[in-house]
Amino acid sequence: MTIRYPNGNQFYEQPASSNTHNDSIDFSNRGMTLEDEINKSNQYYLKNGIAVIHKKPTPIQIVSVDYPKRSAARIKEAYFRKASTTDYNGVYKGKYIDFDAKETKSKTSFPLKNFHKHQVEHMRQCLKQQGICFAIIKFISDQSVYLLKATDLIDYWDQQETGGRKSIPRKVIEKDGFLIAYRINPLLPYLTAVDSFIE
Amino acid sequence: MTIRYPNGNQFYEQPASSNTHNDSIDFSNRGMTLEDEINKSNQYYLKNGIAVIHKKPTPIQIVSVDYPKRSAARIKEAYFRKASTTDYNGVYKGKYIDFDAKETKSKTSFPLKNFHKHQVEHMRQCLKQQGICFAIIKFISDQSVYLLKATDLIDYWDQQETGGRKSIPRKVIEKDGFLIAYRINPLLPYLTAVDSFIE
Repeated sequence: MTIRYPNGNQFYEQPASSNTHNDSIDFSNRGMTLEDEINKSNQYYLKNGIAVIHKKPTPIQIVSVDYPKRSAARIKEAYFRKASTTDYNGVYKGKYIDFDAKETKSKTSFPLKNFHKHQVEHMRQCLKQQGICFAIIKFISDQSVYLLKATDLIDYWDQQETGGRKSIPRKVIEKDGFLIAYRINPLLPYLTAVDSFIE
Repeated sequence: MTIRYPNGNQFYEQPASSNTHNDSIDFSNRGMTLEDEINKSNQYYLKNGIAVIHKKPTPIQIVSVDYPKRSAARIKEAYFRKASTTDYNGVYKGKYIDFDAKETKSKTSFPLKNFHKHQVEHMRQCLKQQGICFAIIKFISDQSVYLLKATDLIDYWDQQETGGRKSIPRKVIEKDGFLIAYRINPLLPYLTAVDSFIE
């Protein structure tokens, strides 16, 4: 699929690596979801002893299970539950890392409805415990990915609750967030952005 | 259900609290599993702004889902997957907390087969990132609960892999671990044990 910038120009992924030999660039991330991209990056961080960060399993409400003889238990009826926390957490340089990843088709802002109230409350609680909390936001239109600190997200969330706007302007994310440029390895080097705001 | 010590004496739960008025002691934890007890304790820690620690959802492999009109998606076929990490993690005083909870019916030792290789590897990785890792072990026979540091667990695990014993003697757990005495709130004050070995 050809990806185009809003102005119609075709988008080419530019790994922010010094290695620019075309024959060694891995374009296998084409068509990946943000979740895939982060999982791949986390695998790299794990393999290289840099950080231990995992996506939590999807919460499921199990209603009925079959226990057939001689084979694995089979779940016959279950439903998806709303997550009460964020999707990703782990440890990096002794620090607790906690974040959620969201994609948006919007070109000019990030709609706050992408978050549930529970998730924002969870971030607030983690911040109180000195955790490193943030959101990774991807604008699908031009494949730009930003890290936005939870404190900034919460500011907008709270304004929304008292009648403020229901989205964060992209300009604010560009100014206050951290652009995560795609690389070969890790694909999304978001811990580099984390380095820039932890002491 | 009446719980008895190995010598036949009946077991009464003794909350390690200064409050010994019988009419205010909460015996509602009778018959709870260790998981229930820890979840209840985590709720207390969360509500009181002491720590943010959650059990991860059970990992499920989804095979088939129905999307009926006008109602929630229904999972029709799914299977339990082996966890690749521990069950609990979170943040406490800025530190990353990671642990697993296991019950054993054995009276004299804790069988290492209660852990999967993946979980032990995960603990090793978290330790490398300066995470606080441990196991909470409950001897069902007399309702004793201990916190055992991951480093101690890993010592025995590695010995087992080179032909050593397949369990940790209870005496070692009593000596090197930390007894967690039941209280009213939190029911299992395991973070008090954590306090004693983090600086």
